[in-house]
Amino acid sequence: MSAHLMSLNTATVREQMSLRQCIDACARFGIAGISPWRDGVAAMGVDKAARAIRDAGLAVSGLCRGGMFTAGVGAAGRQAALDDNRRAIDEAAALGASCLVMVCGGLAPDSKDLSVARARVQDGLMAILPHARAAGVPLALEPLHPMTCADRSVLSTLGQALDLCDALGEGAGVALDVYHVWWDPDLSAQIRRAGTRILAFHVCDWLMPTTDTVFDRGMPGDGVIEIRAIHDQVTAAGYRGLTEVEILSHAWWTRDADHVIATCIDRVAAYC
Amino acid sequence: MSAHLMSLNTATVREQMSLRQCIDACARFGIAGISPWRDGVAAMGVDKAARAIRDAGLAVSGLCRGGMFTAGVGAAGRQAALDDNRRAIDEAAALGASCLVMVCGGLAPDSKDLSVARARVQDGLMAILPHARAAGVPLALEPLHPMTCADRSVLSTLGQALDLCDALGEGAGVALDVYHVWWDPDLSAQIRRAGTRILAFHVCDWLMPTTDTVFDRGMPGDGVIEIRAIHDQVTAAGYRGLTEVEILSHAWWTRDADHVIATCIDRVAAYC
Repeated sequence: MSAHLMSLNTATVREQMSLRQCIDACARFGIAGISPWRDGVAAMGVDKAARAIRDAGLAVSGLCRGGMFTAGVGAAGRQAALDDNRRAIDEAAALGASCLVMVCGGLAPDSKDLSVARARVQDGLMAILPHARAAGVPLALEPLHPMTCADRSVLSTLGQALDLCDALGEGAGVALDVYHVWWDPDLSAQIRRAGTRILAFHVCDWLMPTTDTVFDRGMPGDGVIEIRAIHDQVTAAGYRGLTEVEILSHAWWTRDADHVIATCIDRVAAYC
Repeated sequence: MSAHLMSLNTATVREQMSLRQCIDACARFGIAGISPWRDGVAAMGVDKAARAIRDAGLAVSGLCRGGMFTAGVGAAGRQAALDDNRRAIDEAAALGASCLVMVCGGLAPDSKDLSVARARVQDGLMAILPHARAAGVPLALEPLHPMTCADRSVLSTLGQALDLCDALGEGAGVALDVYHVWWDPDLSAQIRRAGTRILAFHVCDWLMPTTDTVFDRGMPGDGVIEIRAIHDQVTAAGYRGLTEVEILSHAWWTRDADHVIATCIDRVAAYC
């Protein structure tokens, strides 16, 4: 019933299904959209993946992911990150993705300096933005939960992401995942501020207890996030895209993929 | 060499030492202060603990902890939390603690509503503040890392804590633990805003990877936090108190207590 409002992020069943199988499953379940990861796209071949997704009538709510500007060492490392991001933009364009989701990177190797890492993120985004604009692929900056600041994203809050969008200008927006931002006392105000710059809306849930800082995300409804309340705020701000279910979970990866997907559809209906 | 600037939070060696043993160790190592937990104080008896700490010449940089306003169910549960907090204030006064550290509580039982939890925290603080003022015990609101929002503290950032202090007025300040706030893009500005309302300064470190959301804190220097930089900002804001080492860590709890304490002293010298 809610499949027509939903997009399946392929990471949700990444241990069970190839991209090809995900596309088929989305078609079979009547799911409106898909959000593939680049490794799956590469394994299938970008042209073949684009054709299969188009043939299945699926929207591409995002490509996961660009970013990681801080990972490389030295000038060569920085250049490699920029090159890789430009390739990601080209892939997103080929897939007709509505955005490229950007996980911007944590601290630089052997560095504790947050300001250096943040500057590298901003410089990296500035450097690839012309390519993204030319390709017609908006960059969706995703603030990640502060517990991932050291190793995944020094971009931690929606407010910080919007400050960066302000600096970047046209072609930059945000990807909002309830898992990363639900705790933020400033969330409602920043969603209003974001308005139509929200390019993607991701859902999963915060489990109590949470036993892994990356791979213990919950199925919507199994945790404590008021997903519908956030969804309603995002809609009120002007977001008209799909609700993308992205669950990185050792537990759900052990389960039958069709069961996982059917559960996602039910939960989006119940909680979004 | 840095022991005279340091306070030992007894949780750092809670699996190895009683409060009595912690007091003796602080005296033996020349550590300037101690920050006991209430269970240890209760086990020893508050008067006996107060006398022993005084006889050892130790400052009490805080009593851990008050708060948890959201834990109880119904009116009786709320009242029990207030009563317990008033007892904590009395104990802090008896110990001559420079503040009562407040871990304010997570979501209420069976509730996902953050605004309800935040309101209960504020109401609870308002209710006990007159008792705290009368006892001369400042309440040190401790923002906790957002990964503890569901189960420990809906108070997540220094800015949010200071907003609450503004609402509470005299007798309320903050306890700043680098572990909880190091990731915050607004940290420097909020430290300046806090000024002399910083009542306690706690250090440990953020490990990469972090394997437990509560009990995997690192020894200063073993992780990625720029502790000295934050320390310098706190000092510049006007803080003149001790640097309290609080390490909740399954790993450090398995080690010889004297070794742990000696390492703390060395690391405070090197990183604070």
